[in-house]
Amino acid sequence: MNVSGSPPFPAAGSKAELEEGTVLSPRFGADGLITCVTMDAITGEILMVAHMNAEALAKTIETGEAWYWSRSRGELWHKGATSGQIQTVREIRVDCDQDALLLKVQVAGDGGCCHTGRRSCFYRRVEMSDGRTRLVIA
Amino acid sequence: MNVSGSPPFPAAGSKAELEEGTVLSPRFGADGLITCVTMDAITGEILMVAHMNAEALAKTIETGEAWYWSRSRGELWHKGATSGQIQTVREIRVDCDQDALLLKVQVAGDGGCCHTGRRSCFYRRVEMSDGRTRLVIA
Repeated sequence: MNVSGSPPFPAAGSKAELEEGTVLSPRFGADGLITCVTMDAITGEILMVAHMNAEALAKTIETGEAWYWSRSRGELWHKGATSGQIQTVREIRVDCDQDALLLKVQVAGDGGCCHTGRRSCFYRRVEMSDGRTRLVIA
Repeated sequence: MNVSGSPPFPAAGSKAELEEGTVLSPRFGADGLITCVTMDAITGEILMVAHMNAEALAKTIETGEAWYWSRSRGELWHKGATSGQIQTVREIRVDCDQDALLLKVQVAGDGGCCHTGRRSCFYRRVEMSDGRTRLVIA
């Protein structure tokens, strides 16, 4: 992928090309974003779910570090730029219809990911009993 | 959670309640959907990324089997109802700001998940060389 060109990613081709082809043609949504699941490359733990626009994905590929689009701040987000929790990308995978990405990363700094201070954003389990749910930190 | 009431999930409270509280108050997007990452509970492999509306999530909690909202078909989707690849839910986790879910499931039938016949939808790796990307089945 050459990000000096525009647009940086080719439009999706046929269903067969999308599912079986060798061309990365991510299907960004109407909001210009694609969902990205980020996993710790060493432990296999799911760290976070975030979003990328085309520029964030291009920068991630170019730099080997994870860039996202912050929906809350409305800006490109170089993960770890302020916290030191830089995510070095070990592998990028794409799903069958190319509307989701899976990043396997190695986390720098204190090894954390979540803004609450936890390693993973998925620090709560949904407990179910008597037809009711309750979140438990576990 | 009692799905006989309406709406089935309470609205999100304060940031502190959302992040540290015990109440499941999923933040469905403007399209009424929340992103769901589904992992094989035994192998830890990421199987798919899909979406749930409130009804799909309520049915998942009630039945212990994964229900999604099919965006392509525009209907509730009991995963495996036709393929036999029923996903029995072993654990549901929610992320810090409650806009993403992580399901750990045990898959019935042939143990597969993807409509292309693979176990996981993430059957392709993005290879990078000479500033270009290429998808490789691996």
